[in-house]
Amino acid sequence: MESTRRPRLSPAIADLRRAVRELLPESGLVLVGLSGGADSLALAAATAFEAPRAGLRAGAVIIDHGLQAGSARIAAAAAAQAAGLGLDPVLVQTVDVTDTAGDGPEAAARTARYAAFDTALEQTGAAAVLLGHTLDDQAETVLLGIARGSGATSLHGMAPVTGRFRRPLLGIRRAQTRQACLDAGLTAWSDPQNLDPRYARVRARESVLPLLEAELGPGIAEALARTAVTLREDAAALDALVPALLAGAVTAGESGTSVRVAALAAQPAALRQRMIRTLAADGFGAALERSHTLAVARLVTHWHGQKALDLPGVRVERQGDMLIFSAARHTQNKGPFRSHGTS
Amino acid sequence: MESTRRPRLSPAIADLRRAVRELLPESGLVLVGLSGGADSLALAAATAFEAPRAGLRAGAVIIDHGLQAGSARIAAAAAAQAAGLGLDPVLVQTVDVTDTAGDGPEAAARTARYAAFDTALEQTGAAAVLLGHTLDDQAETVLLGIARGSGATSLHGMAPVTGRFRRPLLGIRRAQTRQACLDAGLTAWSDPQNLDPRYARVRARESVLPLLEAELGPGIAEALARTAVTLREDAAALDALVPALLAGAVTAGESGTSVRVAALAAQPAALRQRMIRTLAADGFGAALERSHTLAVARLVTHWHGQKALDLPGVRVERQGDMLIFSAARHTQNKGPFRSHGTS
Repeated sequence: MESTRRPRLSPAIADLRRAVRELLPESGLVLVGLSGGADSLALAAATAFEAPRAGLRAGAVIIDHGLQAGSARIAAAAAAQAAGLGLDPVLVQTVDVTDTAGDGPEAAARTARYAAFDTALEQTGAAAVLLGHTLDDQAETVLLGIARGSGATSLHGMAPVTGRFRRPLLGIRRAQTRQACLDAGLTAWSDPQNLDPRYARVRARESVLPLLEAELGPGIAEALARTAVTLREDAAALDALVPALLAGAVTAGESGTSVRVAALAAQPAALRQRMIRTLAADGFGAALERSHTLAVARLVTHWHGQKALDLPGVRVERQGDMLIFSAARHTQNKGPFRSHGTS
Repeated sequence: MESTRRPRLSPAIADLRRAVRELLPESGLVLVGLSGGADSLALAAATAFEAPRAGLRAGAVIIDHGLQAGSARIAAAAAAQAAGLGLDPVLVQTVDVTDTAGDGPEAAARTARYAAFDTALEQTGAAAVLLGHTLDDQAETVLLGIARGSGATSLHGMAPVTGRFRRPLLGIRRAQTRQACLDAGLTAWSDPQNLDPRYARVRARESVLPLLEAELGPGIAEALARTAVTLREDAAALDALVPALLAGAVTAGESGTSVRVAALAAQPAALRQRMIRTLAADGFGAALERSHTLAVARLVTHWHGQKALDLPGVRVERQGDMLIFSAARHTQNKGPFRSHGTS
């Protein structure tokens, strides 16, 4: 519609602007997370155009990870581009990437980056940070999730909105962001890390996705991104049902949380699993894996006097018509769960 | 448990027998779908062992697709192996594979095969046909589903039980079936079609899965199979909710099916989409794609006086607080839906 009124506008730029328009916050300041690469640079240009028309101010935040030679210079160049686009304020945050958690350099950089975004939100009072993740990033995330194999949740990819982070470009191809930069006369920075095969994401992008396209047909990236959307919807609908299912079935006591076995038995596996995971997470901060929740479910569906289950962070035992969730054994010195009897 | 009592039993054979035991029907005759390949031959051996211990009779049905030179001889050899395992009856069904539907040779062979299984069930009065699909087959199916990109349903893979078809080996690796044959002294037939790269499934197996393992880490096949299970559970739970949601919201009339907009608006996207798909399928035999159901959903969530939607097999129009589903326009000559006015 918009593009028919402005026939000279590049289709890539028009697509990006439309995508940004649909995900702008209501009012106030919006920040673009800018690396200087094509994705975030095209996002910055689209936001600089759309934000004022929606009554918003638009700024940028640039993270200097300090991981590459010349990173300060690259950050300064991105800041100059942001200012040139009319973004204001433009913040440059230097972060310290140390893999204290031992999750690898990618995860450490990610943690540092999001912490810096949080600081920028706080410093500026901005309503949101827009991030330049594209459909291609989403497809890679889903593929890496499949490889991790943590089940359905690993396939959800990135959410369009997570708290104050928004990803307007999840439906936009990476090639479109490059084209939009070209059409706007913007020179994007090419991060050499984007070609470093030591990163699983780079291998997914450069090696796996092209082979999938070649062997199984075109459209794999779109298919993966589409799958992420529907799976996210399905999971959200199921998750939303859990609180009401638990509300009438649970009793909190001194020795733990009791839930009626019948309430779990009445639900299909997907909801029973979620009820169990929620009881463990909300009551005891335990993040159960599927093998754990399946073991708990068998106390409901295949009861033959099993012992109490000592799971990471939580203990689950069947007593008659109730399942009792209690603190994990090593943090518990008394109470009725000391013995592992089969009741 | 079993294996500690029989310490000499091959672990592969023990695993297969356990898997078969868990999926045997209650009583009567069970047939094994036998090709002579390692998967179905190992399944036949395990079934020949387990069925009598469960009070069942076990037979085999062998399909001669007539697609390869010597297929009759291969079928006869498989029949002899089945008889040697003590299976009775052993049926050989010769089928005519003609791609009348134009879906390709794999789909045509599949259709012919399942029709022959149905005939065998009818002829013998068997309770079930056991099929030799393994975890590797499941992983390939999920991968091919991703490539088709038909959304979440494409990732469900094969169900353990579909009507009278049962797949006990979905948790068993293909390598285990080969080992079980070896350990039992059974010589499996190697189908040359299993190496023919003209088949997408062969490319998924021989090229894509090994690359995924090499680039993204081991365990991809298990991860894909695990994903199929959880997604199948999630979908089943959501599907089961739809009838009750529709029951109170729908009125069937001469001009079509009316559903209250508020009933659709009250549900999260995953359930709203399913309600729409069900209304189109049950009332009009229409199989809507996601783009279609999304367009219908916008009549609920983004109403600004849109025209009636003429979708494949069904017409959907908003009238005030109701959505009206009616027969597709080309089959309808009268009634209030002739005009495309925006009401």
